[in-house]
Amino acid sequence: MEERVQLSILLDIYGKLLTEKQQDVMDLYYNEDLSLAEISEHTSTSRQAVYDIIRRCHKLLLQYEEKLHLLEKNEKLKKSKQSLLKFIDSLCCNENKEILSKIKNYIIDNI
Amino acid sequence: MEERVQLSILLDIYGKLLTEKQQDVMDLYYNEDLSLAEISEHTSTSRQAVYDIIRRCHKLLLQYEEKLHLLEKNEKLKKSKQSLLKFIDSLCCNENKEILSKIKNYIIDNI
Repeated sequence: MEERVQLSILLDIYGKLLTEKQQDVMDLYYNEDLSLAEISEHTSTSRQAVYDIIRRCHKLLLQYEEKLHLLEKNEKLKKSKQSLLKFIDSLCCNENKEILSKIKNYIIDNI
Repeated sequence: MEERVQLSILLDIYGKLLTEKQQDVMDLYYNEDLSLAEISEHTSTSRQAVYDIIRRCHKLLLQYEEKLHLLEKNEKLKKSKQSLLKFIDSLCCNENKEILSKIKNYIIDNI
């Protein structure tokens, strides 16, 4: 996974553990793709302070993932769901097509 | 859910966000069911400090759940899984019994 994409997902998962100011700065940097200068202006914070917040929170988000593995677990669940759908496909034949399709739709909508 | 059981589950989910000392004390209190005096002796910490750690970490664990809702999400996933199994049961008849049983076992083992 590309580092910027990974950080944006980690921010989505663990963002609430950061302060509001930290969340704002990280959102503007990783989701809105603003430059340090733009974030500095937008948040009335010095460019150096913005840089420090990003560096510190980057580290914090990686530490949270190291401890709780939520991104890893989410990816694993997604893969398990895909494997289950594939497994159901592998059992499919003309006679059970309709019923297996119902089960697949239930899984897609609810898991 | 009984508060003590809930705290023990929250400790299991968020414990890694606590310091090692905090994890030790909380584990002895919520999982090993030791008294404050026993924990005090076991960890060479004053009874008052043990009490403070438990009170502080109790609050921290509830705050983590308020922010990340992992216990709530785990319970929701468990319920979705149960509902899916029930849904499959509701589609079951003599002709598809075997194949639906295979799908159920796959879900039980992998999701």
